[in-house]
Amino acid sequence: MQLGMIGLGRMGSNMTQRLLKHGHELVVYDTRAESVAELQRLGADGSTVLEEFVAKLSRPRAVWLMLPAAVVDTVLAKLVPLLEKDDIVIDGGNSYYHDDIRRGAALKSSAIHYVDVGTSGGVFGLERGYCLMIGGEPDIVQHLSPIFAALAPGKGDLPETESRRAMLAGESTADQGFLHCGPHGAGHFVKMVHNGIEYGLMAAYSEGLNILRNADIGLRSHEADAETTPLKNPEHYQYQFNLPDIAEVWRRGSVISSWLLDLTADALYEDPGLAGYAGHVSDSGEGRWTLIAAIDEAVPAPVLGAALIERFSSRGNADFANKVLSAMRREFGGHVEKQAKPGGQ
Amino acid sequence: MQLGMIGLGRMGSNMTQRLLKHGHELVVYDTRAESVAELQRLGADGSTVLEEFVAKLSRPRAVWLMLPAAVVDTVLAKLVPLLEKDDIVIDGGNSYYHDDIRRGAALKSSAIHYVDVGTSGGVFGLERGYCLMIGGEPDIVQHLSPIFAALAPGKGDLPETESRRAMLAGESTADQGFLHCGPHGAGHFVKMVHNGIEYGLMAAYSEGLNILRNADIGLRSHEADAETTPLKNPEHYQYQFNLPDIAEVWRRGSVISSWLLDLTADALYEDPGLAGYAGHVSDSGEGRWTLIAAIDEAVPAPVLGAALIERFSSRGNADFANKVLSAMRREFGGHVEKQAKPGGQ
Amino acid sequence: MQLGMIGLGRMGSNMTQRLLKHGHELVVYDTRAESVAELQRLGADGSTVLEEFVAKLSRPRAVWLMLPAAVVDTVLAKLVPLLEKDDIVIDGGNSYYHDDIRRGAALKSSAIHYVDVGTSGGVFGLERGYCLMIGGEPDIVQHLSPIFAALAPGKGDLPETESRRAMLAGESTADQGFLHCGPHGAGHFVKMVHNGIEYGLMAAYSEGLNILRNADIGLRSHEADAETTPLKNPEHYQYQFNLPDIAEVWRRGSVISSWLLDLTADALYEDPGLAGYAGHVSDSGEGRWTLIAAIDEAVPAPVLGAALIERFSSRGNADFANKVLSAMRREFGGHVEKQAKPGGQ
Amino acid sequence: MQLGMIGLGRMGSNMTQRLLKHGHELVVYDTRAESVAELQRLGADGSTVLEEFVAKLSRPRAVWLMLPAAVVDTVLAKLVPLLEKDDIVIDGGNSYYHDDIRRGAALKSSAIHYVDVGTSGGVFGLERGYCLMIGGEPDIVQHLSPIFAALAPGKGDLPETESRRAMLAGESTADQGFLHCGPHGAGHFVKMVHNGIEYGLMAAYSEGLNILRNADIGLRSHEADAETTPLKNPEHYQYQFNLPDIAEVWRRGSVISSWLLDLTADALYEDPGLAGYAGHVSDSGEGRWTLIAAIDEAVPAPVLGAALIERFSSRGNADFANKVLSAMRREFGGHVEKQAKPGGQ
Repeated sequence: MQLGMIGLGRMGSNMTQRLLKHGHELVVYDTRAESVAELQRLGADGSTVLEEFVAKLSRPRAVWLMLPAAVVDTVLAKLVPLLEKDDIVIDGGNSYYHDDIRRGAALKSSAIHYVDVGTSGGVFGLERGYCLMIGGEPDIVQHLSPIFAALAPGKGDLPETESRRAMLAGESTADQGFLHCGPHGAGHFVKMVHNGIEYGLMAAYSEGLNILRNADIGLRSHEADAETTPLKNPEHYQYQFNLPDIAEVWRRGSVISSWLLDLTADALYEDPGLAGYAGHVSDSGEGRWTLIAAIDEAVPAPVLGAALIERFSSRGNADFANKVLSAMRREFGGHVEKQAKPGGQ
Repeated sequence: MQLGMIGLGRMGSNMTQRLLKHGHELVVYDTRAESVAELQRLGADGSTVLEEFVAKLSRPRAVWLMLPAAVVDTVLAKLVPLLEKDDIVIDGGNSYYHDDIRRGAALKSSAIHYVDVGTSGGVFGLERGYCLMIGGEPDIVQHLSPIFAALAPGKGDLPETESRRAMLAGESTADQGFLHCGPHGAGHFVKMVHNGIEYGLMAAYSEGLNILRNADIGLRSHEADAETTPLKNPEHYQYQFNLPDIAEVWRRGSVISSWLLDLTADALYEDPGLAGYAGHVSDSGEGRWTLIAAIDEAVPAPVLGAALIERFSSRGNADFANKVLSAMRREFGGHVEKQAKPGGQ
Repeated sequence: MQLGMIGLGRMGSNMTQRLLKHGHELVVYDTRAESVAELQRLGADGSTVLEEFVAKLSRPRAVWLMLPAAVVDTVLAKLVPLLEKDDIVIDGGNSYYHDDIRRGAALKSSAIHYVDVGTSGGVFGLERGYCLMIGGEPDIVQHLSPIFAALAPGKGDLPETESRRAMLAGESTADQGFLHCGPHGAGHFVKMVHNGIEYGLMAAYSEGLNILRNADIGLRSHEADAETTPLKNPEHYQYQFNLPDIAEVWRRGSVISSWLLDLTADALYEDPGLAGYAGHVSDSGEGRWTLIAAIDEAVPAPVLGAALIERFSSRGNADFANKVLSAMRREFGGHVEKQAKPGGQ
Repeated sequence: MQLGMIGLGRMGSNMTQRLLKHGHELVVYDTRAESVAELQRLGADGSTVLEEFVAKLSRPRAVWLMLPAAVVDTVLAKLVPLLEKDDIVIDGGNSYYHDDIRRGAALKSSAIHYVDVGTSGGVFGLERGYCLMIGGEPDIVQHLSPIFAALAPGKGDLPETESRRAMLAGESTADQGFLHCGPHGAGHFVKMVHNGIEYGLMAAYSEGLNILRNADIGLRSHEADAETTPLKNPEHYQYQFNLPDIAEVWRRGSVISSWLLDLTADALYEDPGLAGYAGHVSDSGEGRWTLIAAIDEAVPAPVLGAALIERFSSRGNADFANKVLSAMRREFGGHVEKQAKPGGQ
């Protein structure tokens, strides 16, 4: 079927290509002419003029936005006046689900349909397919299912979930890699929590690898002073582990095998000390929103919270709090701060 | 090659069967005659008398212990006097690596070799193979490699880690699912951290699913009182999610796909409300030891720590601390505890 | 000076009494006639009719609202039309500072001034005085300072902060127990963070006392099973501590002495096992808002976060997540949940 | 009564002075002649020769060790052979309570008594008195009570704990600032938990102050990019708070008033930006041991744990874990690390 795609960054471009390969008809829009031209070479129609782009689409139009969350409303403000009754707008980016609820309600008055799609898969999605979490009206989601099916990975060669069959759950499309999760915002809500979990998983591996990396602490010399806890049993920390090999062996048959672990093994073989990274870890919103949802729901989320907080700390944002601690220690105990040493514990 | 197996519980029995299938010669020992008999029917030799069991093994003997950590030393005390110079004892259970270091040193004086093997794979290992993390002397580990290769999953159909090739890392056996990690205790140290990570991963999924499950909180009635924060935006929490389908869709192409997620989807389809569980979560040692290692190394492990702490809380162990909080609130604010309501937030 | 007081609950009534004692002229309002009558007996003027209440106040009127956060906007909707240019509304309750910003801006158009006051001190404030954190326009706050000075504890017999003098900070009123913190919302922002800290302090004491209480775990019998970590060194946990005495001794000269500890000692002497509490701990908003502010600011707040999360857990809100953990453990390891035992670890 | 004091560092010297002021007879020992001489000038007897020091003490001798935990066993090895039946050794430093249990049992065979005393009060103890938590045999602790009473703050002018009277708890010495907590190790166990709580309290204030300090984040310019969450409501974060004044006002009548807050106010007035500190926060053992005790007891201690972990992070120990996160993000999403900016969020 026909789909309009707005936003030809890495994600939008890859998704367009995947849809073209599956035989869909794509009309693309971006202000950068070369992005449009590149996809035209691959078989898409397109324009750098929004009015032209809209004119190329048959009614009811289906327009997929693949844009940074911060610019979606700006683009919608220009796009919506060009649309008509029964047209469909799909936001496939990382919008906050609050915005979906608001937009879905606002567009309803123009009889335009809004669909939010949380999209996971990253740069590998072009080949592997994208996991799609979808919010919107059931018949509209149903209408777009050929698009979703093409973007999603499909069943692949993953083993079927055994108990699923017995539940007669086969009617949902979950095992094909796309799912209608609920009304407006449901897709981005599920994607938000997906990313919250992602932070937690990433942190679990990172902390574990850090513990392994420091298992040689008994081999390093430590001067004894009143400020530092002496290591009671240095003989227990004499290991110099090969982290890439450990990540690799865990990929095979262990309880903690995962796609993130596959990627971690790759990164570690490439640069075992990860010297190419500074360790300032960004967070792009969903982890924060997940925590805020947990707080609103009064659901305990200590692991997801700790994972988010680690990212804040990685950027130096605890510095002032730490200075307060040092100041207190000097006040009550006369403790003078030790100078930090590279690699010191 | 020949291997003696002590301990025919679920793990020991399955490992024996996997080794038999791969053509190895197994001699088994257990005090339960029926356990021995069952494996004899499948091709193993065996005995319920330890002396007989040892006598059936050719020198240098290789004896694998698959026992609860708490009984390993008791069994070793009986076994070691029956062994001779150059024999090998392998502890494949969940021993604390401190004990491996101690045992390795103690056995060295009798010229008996000790190997510690952390084993992951659970009840699925019989079919899938076991991920093996190994500590001990290099030549001894090398000598046992046919056994390890048979127990491990092998390369399987997992995609090769791309950057691994370039690193000439192909000489290690990591991609076959077993790895010599270092000297005595190294195998159980790596397995310990593996389990620490496992706790973290499990908690990340659990918390995320709990947030999804409570996304309907805006639909539930809440009386307003001075003790309870009113939900500011109930319209943001009107979702009734299908958790099994969400777990299933995440298996396909998402960043958080993993084997644990495969299992979670299965459990959720079987019992979507998980009514069959009380939620009292045991912890069998490695998670605690991982945290203690992190503390000794001064490595921050907030996610692994939070995951362990959640398990303690799940068993009611925070109750007294919570009562202290209630008592303080009554003291300074005259706050009277609300009665808990089932399903209340 | 004259002040109108709306809301004669425990806090509003106590504050009225404290102001009367300091010679101020109070006009009170509440829909409950007996509350008004009681304060009239103590010297206040008052009414159960809002129009009458407003009419009794001289211009520019100063009206203090001491109401549950959830009803402030409702009362303001009735009150504001009765007010005139230059009148002042003070919200002394626990409003979210977002609401202060909004209200301050809205009232500005009517040339009515808005002041937000975070009030700490609880039921002891009548005697001890209230710590007041104030947001609003400087001249308005200045105008109200006789009221603030009467409500606040004053310098009392607390030792002066030594370095304060040198800073010529004596011009601020901080050492008298009230402080103009900044523009609209600043008072409640500071009070919000105060309460966030309060949660953290309370949790620190509670957890420590719980560790002391369980220092007898080596004395309790524990059956050994594969699901439970055996306690490695029961001889290290043979202490049966007297918690009330420990709280009491910490009050004298220790680094952790505080007013909260004074209260804790009192509660523990009254009921050493705290058997009168269920341990379901409410949270009344500020702790949540503090965390949300920390997230918005990307400031790491692991301790304040953990303290909030403990309260959620105390109310059973982790139950579903814990069930997911149990389900996963059964899936991969065949682990069957242990039945919880009272007092079990 | 007579007391021997070994170790004339800041703590040992101050305690000697306090005891002299209270009329006790002090014999001091240190290898540094000037330390001994200084206290001799203040009225103590003393020596730099251990044998002489012991000879100056009347039997049964009472010897107080005020030494870094790491050297206690070395000094005991020299001291104990010089002691005789019924002599008493007191360890007033920061020993691990495991060591107390071991030493108490070892000295018993020589009929020498061992007492462990956890001492809180820091540099202020000379004036304020020390809070003493004591472990050992009841009659020995009773015998030393004049010493404890002189070191402790006494009742002072702190209000009496009301419910204490009714409990007939008046027989314990808790309200005088010293307490016999239980058998060997009990004193240091309670002190250990005291310090664990101290970490938690300190962290609560630090985090709260950091949230206040960053309440101006809406005033700072932030470029929008795909890596950074844009601040949704900059108008909510326009506050530039005066932290010293806020700490000062909280000292008066607020729920979070404490001695640590008094010290914090002092430090903040002295250096409001705390520019004199790097924020590398040491941890001297008790916080770690508290967490290990919590793990052994399976007691949830998320706040105490988070406080300890923050200190590890403050020293850069999370760096490798953070690099792993950055590496994963680049792998799955092609995310390139942002360069850190001073003061960036």
